[in-house]
This record gives sequence, structure tokens and C-alpha cells, in this order.
Amino acid sequence: MPYELLNQISHPRDLHKLGPEELQRLADEIRALIISTVEQTGGHLGANLGVVELTIALHSVLSSPRDRIVWDVGHQCYAHKIITGRFGQFSTLRQWQGISGFPKRSESEHDHFGVGHSSTAISAAAGMAIARDLSGDDYNVVAVVGDGALTGGMAFEALNHIGSLKQDIVVILNDNEMSIASNVGALSDYLSRLRLDRKLYKAREDLAHLISRIPAIGSPMSRLTHSVKEALKSLLPGQFFEELGFTYSGPFDGHNIAQLRKAIGDGIARRGPVLIHVHTQKGKGYAPAEQNPSKFHGVGPAAPFESDKTVTFSQVFGSALVELARQDETIVAITAAMKDGTGLAEFAEAFPDRFFDVGIAEQHALTLAAGMATAGLKPVAAIYSTFLQRGYDQIVHDICLQALPVVMAVDRAGVVGDDGPTHHGVFDLSFLRHIPGITILAPSTGQELTDMLRWALSQHGPVAIRYPRANTSTPRRDPLNTAFDPTQSREVRTGRDCVILAVGPLVQQALAAAELLYPEIDCSVVDVRSIKPLDERTILRLARLTGYVVTVEDNVLAGGFGSSVLELLASEHGIMVSRLGYPDEFIPQGPIERLWEEYGLSAAGIAQAVRELVGGDIPVVAAKGD
Amino acid sequence: MPYELLNQISHPRDLHKLGPEELQRLADEIRALIISTVEQTGGHLGANLGVVELTIALHSVLSSPRDRIVWDVGHQCYAHKIITGRFGQFSTLRQWQGISGFPKRSESEHDHFGVGHSSTAISAAAGMAIARDLSGDDYNVVAVVGDGALTGGMAFEALNHIGSLKQDIVVILNDNEMSIASNVGALSDYLSRLRLDRKLYKAREDLAHLISRIPAIGSPMSRLTHSVKEALKSLLPGQFFEELGFTYSGPFDGHNIAQLRKAIGDGIARRGPVLIHVHTQKGKGYAPAEQNPSKFHGVGPAAPFESDKTVTFSQVFGSALVELARQDETIVAITAAMKDGTGLAEFAEAFPDRFFDVGIAEQHALTLAAGMATAGLKPVAAIYSTFLQRGYDQIVHDICLQALPVVMAVDRAGVVGDDGPTHHGVFDLSFLRHIPGITILAPSTGQELTDMLRWALSQHGPVAIRYPRANTSTPRRDPLNTAFDPTQSREVRTGRDCVILAVGPLVQQALAAAELLYPEIDCSVVDVRSIKPLDERTILRLARLTGYVVTVEDNVLAGGFGSSVLELLASEHGIMVSRLGYPDEFIPQGPIERLWEEYGLSAAGIAQAVRELVGGDIPVVAAKGD
Repeated sequence: MPYELLNQISHPRDLHKLGPEELQRLADEIRALIISTVEQTGGHLGANLGVVELTIALHSVLSSPRDRIVWDVGHQCYAHKIITGRFGQFSTLRQWQGISGFPKRSESEHDHFGVGHSSTAISAAAGMAIARDLSGDDYNVVAVVGDGALTGGMAFEALNHIGSLKQDIVVILNDNEMSIASNVGALSDYLSRLRLDRKLYKAREDLAHLISRIPAIGSPMSRLTHSVKEALKSLLPGQFFEELGFTYSGPFDGHNIAQLRKAIGDGIARRGPVLIHVHTQKGKGYAPAEQNPSKFHGVGPAAPFESDKTVTFSQVFGSALVELARQDETIVAITAAMKDGTGLAEFAEAFPDRFFDVGIAEQHALTLAAGMATAGLKPVAAIYSTFLQRGYDQIVHDICLQALPVVMAVDRAGVVGDDGPTHHGVFDLSFLRHIPGITILAPSTGQELTDMLRWALSQHGPVAIRYPRANTSTPRRDPLNTAFDPTQSREVRTGRDCVILAVGPLVQQALAAAELLYPEIDCSVVDVRSIKPLDERTILRLARLTGYVVTVEDNVLAGGFGSSVLELLASEHGIMVSRLGYPDEFIPQGPIERLWEEYGLSAAGIAQAVRELVGGDIPVVAAKGD
Repeated sequence: MPYELLNQISHPRDLHKLGPEELQRLADEIRALIISTVEQTGGHLGANLGVVELTIALHSVLSSPRDRIVWDVGHQCYAHKIITGRFGQFSTLRQWQGISGFPKRSESEHDHFGVGHSSTAISAAAGMAIARDLSGDDYNVVAVVGDGALTGGMAFEALNHIGSLKQDIVVILNDNEMSIASNVGALSDYLSRLRLDRKLYKAREDLAHLISRIPAIGSPMSRLTHSVKEALKSLLPGQFFEELGFTYSGPFDGHNIAQLRKAIGDGIARRGPVLIHVHTQKGKGYAPAEQNPSKFHGVGPAAPFESDKTVTFSQVFGSALVELARQDETIVAITAAMKDGTGLAEFAEAFPDRFFDVGIAEQHALTLAAGMATAGLKPVAAIYSTFLQRGYDQIVHDICLQALPVVMAVDRAGVVGDDGPTHHGVFDLSFLRHIPGITILAPSTGQELTDMLRWALSQHGPVAIRYPRANTSTPRRDPLNTAFDPTQSREVRTGRDCVILAVGPLVQQALAAAELLYPEIDCSVVDVRSIKPLDERTILRLARLTGYVVTVEDNVLAGGFGSSVLELLASEHGIMVSRLGYPDEFIPQGPIERLWEEYGLSAAGIAQAVRELVGGDIPVVAAKGD
């Protein structure tokens, strides 16, 4: 009988009744459910399969929702969701109006902190622990943090702060030796040494005993030999965390429920901040994911376990950068733990010395790029739009204020689909546009992306190129298009009644809208290409010619591209402007095309907006928009 | 003869000729110059007096500009500026069109990286070291980082990344036991232990010798006693940094030039990343600053060594918060190393258990607040506008997406004066306004700030209150003004020809402009109070009534308040809007009123803009603006 045990679990307290053997069987059922569901829905397979036993151990020792479990990143919350009353809804995972792939406060009282970005859990948990103590309450607060998330600076800020407080708080370090791709950085090396230390356990204990018998001190100076130093270090496992004020325990086998239950029980019984080091395997229990965890970090729904044959903007970017880097050895590439997602795998392979994966550390990635630019390199930092939010200050203060030639390849701009509001890249035009000295480009095709990248690398100041999570046509391998100037917009359709100014992937929708409207309303359609600087001449000319302007962007309306058009046209008389984009709310998860429809950015929605503006009397299609 | 040695130094290479005794005398001259100059100009006294010997040691060992010295924060660069050819200009420090108080690439080839915000130097230096090695060059790269700056997460991101690379790079940890106020966090405790360790040096060496003589391993298990563990730790100084892949050396006396020269020479001779721990005293050589370093962190020019008797917005905020916290014990306050600057000292004194200084860690500060808000507290995070840039993603992803009731007290909004472009808070309206669910308020008086703070703490969602670095009138200690609703704007002057919509401190300038214009042009003046949500009803009513709208804000024009007014009025016919604010460039240092004049935000500038818009034929005063 499938899901025999799961059918009995409607609340985490139901786990308290299960014996050791049943808990293990429950793990098997959850694992089977996750695999079969993600085949349908897509999702984060590897991370979720890795924490099944840990999640069961946590919920069987703790009492949620009274006790609080804060998941970092949240892409490992599926078992948690299944156990906390969402077994029945689990098939709606990541679907339109279904449950989220991430913890979400509005979804369950067991989701204590919403998340999607990395490295926030320790800070949030610290806030809860402080609140608990100030109110005289006594629930447990546990943060579950991956080793990858520890490379994010704010996790360290939180460790540093908590370590000096005396609050009882348990941080579980879920060490799967990966962030999203292989982990990077010195801390990762350190964790590897800690894991190896388990083998040295006996030797360590023995050495400790010997040292405890050393009599009083009194002989002459001597230098420590390396081997003695190493032996000493092995006496102090987790010293990095102990120096930060945490009691360290571990490493524990993250797939042994009994051992985990004991470790968690011991951890919550201790006073002060505790770090429990748990060693898990990403993709555990699913052979393809165990063997290639980076590939199975996040998978799409259709044929999830086969590679995608179409060309994405990310792939176009990656290929173009390799080609450009062959011709210019000063070009280097930087990623914050997104080598595969950003299309940089080929670059990393071709130019290992010129490729830098800095971990989940967007702030460092950008200022590193700034430093490189001061010393003659041409750095390209490829970061998803939503994660670029982490580096806003570095873009202002380190890159733009110094007018340094850093290229920011802003991937996943616009709505990203099933990952939902934590991952949509719908703010970048608004948070970048007001920064002095930046150039912001948005290609509508793979060819434009290639040309823009080449152009950006020839500039003497900062350039951001933002492109969507979408497929595109393969660029030509033509001779260099050296005359290309992306700060000139491109009128892709001429018309005399109204001008539609469209950004990036919405140029296609705008063109389709123009076809829908013709011949009743004859629209000019402009592929804007440069959000900053605006091609003021063309926009003014067409606006004056037609008197009607519709702006279309895959960004929030507030302060976005359309807003810059209003700023440009503020002193013009008699020009009517309608702006299409996302309204002042967080955009839910859902298929990208569905979201475009929902928010009036599909061809039909754009056509309707044009009709309303120009005042034609053609019957309109119902669509919700701004 | 004053400055006898300084008169011989026009380039750092001139230091190479000086002997030990002369270098010390040079330090005395530099110290005297800094003290006498800062008495006139204001500036960062403590940090600069603390690094005079370190700066001399660096420049006498290294060869700038070939070798690169990257100063973190940069508020300790005065000796560096004096040595690198700016002795003659030093009296213009922080003055209008004078030299900057921070390193600035456009100012000197010796300023390798511009800075003002904390924790960026290691990232920038890493970029330079990578560029050097890729190009086959061999100059030295040295980052000088305070212990306070190490609490910023991006410094850790950089350490973690560099530690895993093999680049030669020297990080000098300038440990003055302070960030700006006293340092906080576990790392600070750790550094204290390291400093103490110097006294244990002999004992450590002895113990090491003993251990090196321990024979082969072979006896039974035993537990380490605490004392043995502590003894072991003392054998491994700087283990925290060593675990991150750095070779640690120190601590050294930061005021002993000979010792520093030796340590720096040894450091640059080593391969791979090196951390040199230097112990300095903030305010060294100036008794008042030695005794009260927090007070002398940054001082104003006029009577710099006496406290200011006027009431600042920061003080009003601090007092109001104390009063509110007396009535509501769930109110807590958070600062990122700016207890004094944000006016929270009184709160910290009155409610030590409810006050949290998290170090220079804005990201953690904001997500900590979010976590607190999920657990019943009412957190108020007081952060300067320019530093809030570091927390943009946390505001979006942790606070606003979850609609958590966090109050952000955004101090130093608008131009801040002599600290210049790295510190001006002229972007906050643009980077906050597009975030769904946030309320953004701007008081024009201390009374409004008090009332807004009370109102914000009664809300169920996020509220940012942004106020300037300025004096204001003392608020009344009236009974609670419970009817106050800051989302309603306030028409402070009625007029029928034009409406001036003014933000915060510029309401006074707008009123003065209206007086200048009357009776030729009769202006209504509105204290906007809420930038988001807009008081649409009032704005629409007055805009329709007069047909002319002038917006005035202490923020960049792109995507700012005026832009939101354009968005509101986009579908109105025949209303002309002129927007005043900062243009699309970084704003230089200078007195606040001077900057207002320069950018057309003074009463005269506003009056001129109104005249131009309304088209009156009154002669205009010349003023540069947007």
C-alpha cells in the first residue's frame, strides 16, 4: 500500500507516535513521493532528497509550530511540507495557485519564515530567539543552514552576532559538500577537514589523554612543527565555530535518524548557541541525482531528467562570452555559485584560470569585479536579477561611483515562473535605473544579447544586460557587427497611430499585439534595447508623431522603464502614455506566459491597452492589468 | 620649524630616504597636522590618529602607486593623503571642491580604490591580485581593514574566497577594538583573546616544546579538560584566520614603526594570503580622543571638540523611541554600529536588554528585525540611508514580501554634506518606492518625526521613515496625537496658481519660495509626508485646481518622488509638472545648503522653477538645476 504511513501524518505531532523502524519507512515513502511529484512539477530534487531523514528527526524531536524551524534558502522544505499537513496538496507544488516550492508564512503555521534567497535563516532565527527570551517564553528555535549558504556574508554576520549573545539557539549545518554546484571557498575546505577528522577520532582522544598528563610548564622555547600543529587542530574540531562562540558538535550522519534525533535532543538541551554539523548527501536515494547533484539541483517538469535541447538566453550568453574571451584574454567571468544556471560552465571549462565562482556571495562578486576592473581586466559578473538585489550597494558604491567597466550579466530578469515571488526578477530596472553612470540594456533576441555583450565589453563604464529565463533563436556566427550600438533603439514595425515601446522578450508580444490591432490601429513597435540611456531622439520623435505611447516591460511599474518615459515626456504637451508592467504587489508563481496574460503583458493585453489609450471603439478582450 | 619633514615629502618614495628616528618625527608632524586641520574642517579624527605609524610603515616599505594599498572604509586615509602628495591641499579637506575625506581614484594615482562604506577592501584587493597574476605582473597588494569592518558579511565572503585561492595578498587587520562605537560580536571577543595571548607567549612556547616531545600515541580515551583545551588554543593563535586559509601573524604594536615595517616586509615576502594583526589605539596622541573614541569618530568643523547643543532629527528620533518604549515593552531597537550617530545611546542606556548593536552588518540587522517581528516584537532598525543600500534585498525579500511590521528609521537621508558622494542618502526614495507593501514617510519637522514613529509602531506592515542630517525644532511633549495619519499630506500654504509638493526638510525651502513668488504667483505648498502611498486625492485635487505641479525632493530625480507624481498624473490631461531633485550624477561633497543651491533646491531655485513652469515674465535668478 503506497504512502501507508504518510496517510497517518496530518501534523508533525503524529511523528511522535512512530518507532524507529517506522520513521525510516516514512523516509522511504517521502522520498518516493518527492521523486514522483517532481517528475510532474519540476523542483529542487537534490536538496530535498538530502534532508528527508533530517526533517523527520527534527519534527519527531521538536513540537512545531510551538518550536520554530527556520529553513535557509528553503529549497529543501518538501519533506517539511509533506509532514506538516500538506501531503494532500503536494501534487500542486509550484503550480499556478498551488503550494510554493519554498516555505511561506501565509501557507502554514509551520512555515515560520518565508525564504528563497540564501543565508537569511540564522538572522531570522536569532530574532525569534531574542523575542522568545524577552517575552519569557521557552520554545526551541532551530535554523537549518546548508554549507553553501554559509559562504553568504550575512550568515557570518548572524553567527558573529549570535555568538556574542547568550540566547539558546541551534544551528544545524546541513553539510552536503555542495552549494548548488560544487562548493567553493576556504570554509568549504575547512568542513572537508572536519569530516575527515571523524577518522582521526581515536587518535585525537589518545593524544588528548597524553596532553592532559603533561606536568607543569618549564622548558625552553621551541617552534611548533607542522605535524604537531595539525595534531593539535584535530583536538579542537569545529574551532572555527567555537571561536565564534558556538558549541560545536558533529559531524553526524545525516541519514541516520536515530543519531540525528540524539544530536538534536542534546543540542536543544544545551545552553547558548549550538552548532550541529550534519553530513548529508544531495540527491540521496535517487541514483541519477546522487551521481550528478549539480544537474539535479533544480529540474523542470517536462522530462525532468533529460537535458533541454533548445537555446536559452543563458546559453547564448555563455557561448558568446567564450567566443569573446578567445579574442581578449583580459575578459574574466564571475559567478556566485551559479556556474551552470548562468551558462558559464563552458567558460569555466575553457578558461579555468579566468573563471571565478565565489560562492553564494553576490556582494563580494561585484566588488571583486570592481577591483579587477581597476587593474586592467574586463570582468563579467553573471548574476540572476533577484540575487543581484544583494549587491545593490556594491553596484552603487564600488562600481558606478567609480565608473568602472564592469559588465553585469543579469540573468532571469522578469518573472521566472514556478519559483515564484522570491525569485522573480521584476525589480532590476527600478533599482538600477537611478544609479548614475550605469548603462542598462535588454535584448529581445539571442542575437541582440551577443551583440550587446560584445559592445558592453568595449565600454569604459558599467553596463548591465538583463535578459529573461526564456528560449531564444540561436545567434548567427556572423562577422563582428562592429557598427552595432544598443543605445539606439530599433523600430521593428512602423505605424502612425500609436507607438509601443517594448523591453526585451515583450517585443514579440508587442509585435503580435500590433498585428491584432491592424488595420484598426496602426502601431509602431520599438525594441527599446537600452533602458538607460534612453534613445530620447527616437522616442520623442515617435511620441510626437503619434501622440500615443504604450510602454511594455517585464518589471514593476513603479520607477521602471515606463516611468523613465514619463520623465522624458514630462515637458511635452498632449502626449498620452499608458504603461504596462507589474503592479505594486508581489507576483505569484505560475507559468511565465500565464503571468504575462494575468498582468496584461500578453499580445491580447497589450492590444487592449492600446485600444483603451487610443480610444478606438473595437470590442476589447477582458484582461486584468494595471 | 613646523612640518620640517613633511615639507620634504611630495611622494611616498621620499619616505624611503628617512631613517627610523625621522620616520617617528614625521609621525608627530602628521599627527599635529591632522589635529589642527580637523579642528577647522571636521572629519574622522580617531581613526586617522590611530594609523599614522601604520601608514608611514606601509609607504616606507611599499612603492605606491606600483604597489597597491586598499583602505577599507577609508576614514583613516588622512596620513596616506598627506604622504602621497596632498600635504599642500590638506587644508581643503572635506571642503567644497577640496580634497575628499576618503580615498578617491580621481584624486590621486595612490588612491587605488574609492571607498566610504565598510568591508569592501578585501574584495577589491582580491580583484587586483587576480588581475596582477593573470597579467604576469608582480606588484604587492595590501588591504587595510579595521576590526569593525570584519563584522560586515562581505569582508567574510572575501576572506573565504581568497583563502581558497593562492594569490599573494596581504590583509592588515587594523585592530583598534572599536568599529565606530565599541565593537560587538564574537569575532571581537576572539580578537581580544588574541591580544591577551601576547602575555601567554612564553607559556605557549613552553607548552609547544613539551608537546613536541610526546612519544608515539597509544593510551586510552579521555576527555579534554577545559584548561587543556584553552592551553591548546593558545598554541594556535589566529586559528580562525588560519582555518580560512590565511597565514596569520601578530598581534603587533601598531605604533611601533620598526616593528610594523618588519611585519609588513615579512608579510609581502610570504606566498599566498597573509593576515597581519596590528593593534592600534584610536585617537592615539590626542588625549580627548583617546579617552572618548566613539565621540571623536567623526567630528564637525565648528568647535569640533564640544558637544552640539541643538536638536537633530536623530536626537528627536532617539528621545521619541525611548518614550514609546516606556509604554510598550515589545519595542526593541537595532543599530549597525551606529549607536551614537542614530541617536540610540539613550535607548541603549534605558533598555539594555532591548537594544541590539549587531556590528557593521546591515543585512543581518534587517533580517534579525524580520525574525523578531514574526515573534511578537516591534523592531525599529535605525540605519543611515546610504548604508541601508546594503540591506536592499533584505527589505524586499525578508521584510516586505512577508509584510512584516518592521520600522526602518532611515537617518541621514538626502545630502549629508562634507562626507560627500559615498555618504549622501539620495537614492532611498528610488530604491524603496517600488517595493510592494512598504510605507515611506518623510517628516519635515521633529514633531512630525515623533508622530510618524508612533504611528509606524502601530502598523501591521513595514514602514520606513527617512529624515535628514539636520537640526529641527524640539517636538512638544503633548498628549498623544492619536488622530495623526501621516499618509494624509498637509497643505501648509494655500495658493491658486501652482502647487509645490515638497518632501521633508525641503518643505521649508518650498514655503520660502512661495513667499518669494507671492503675489506674482500664488503657490500652494504641500508637506507630502508620505511618499508611499501617495495622498492621491489631495495631489489630484490641487493639480487639477492649479494645472501646475512642482515636486521638490532631496533624492535623485530618476524613479524618485516626482516620478511617482508623474505616474499618478499620467492619465490626466493638461497638467504640467516640473520635478526638482538631484540629476543623474553623483553629488559632490559640500555644505548641505550649498548643495541645495547648486542643484536648484534652495528657495530661490524652487521659485525659479515655478516661474519657468507657470511662465511668468518675472526676471529669474540664475541657478543650476535639473
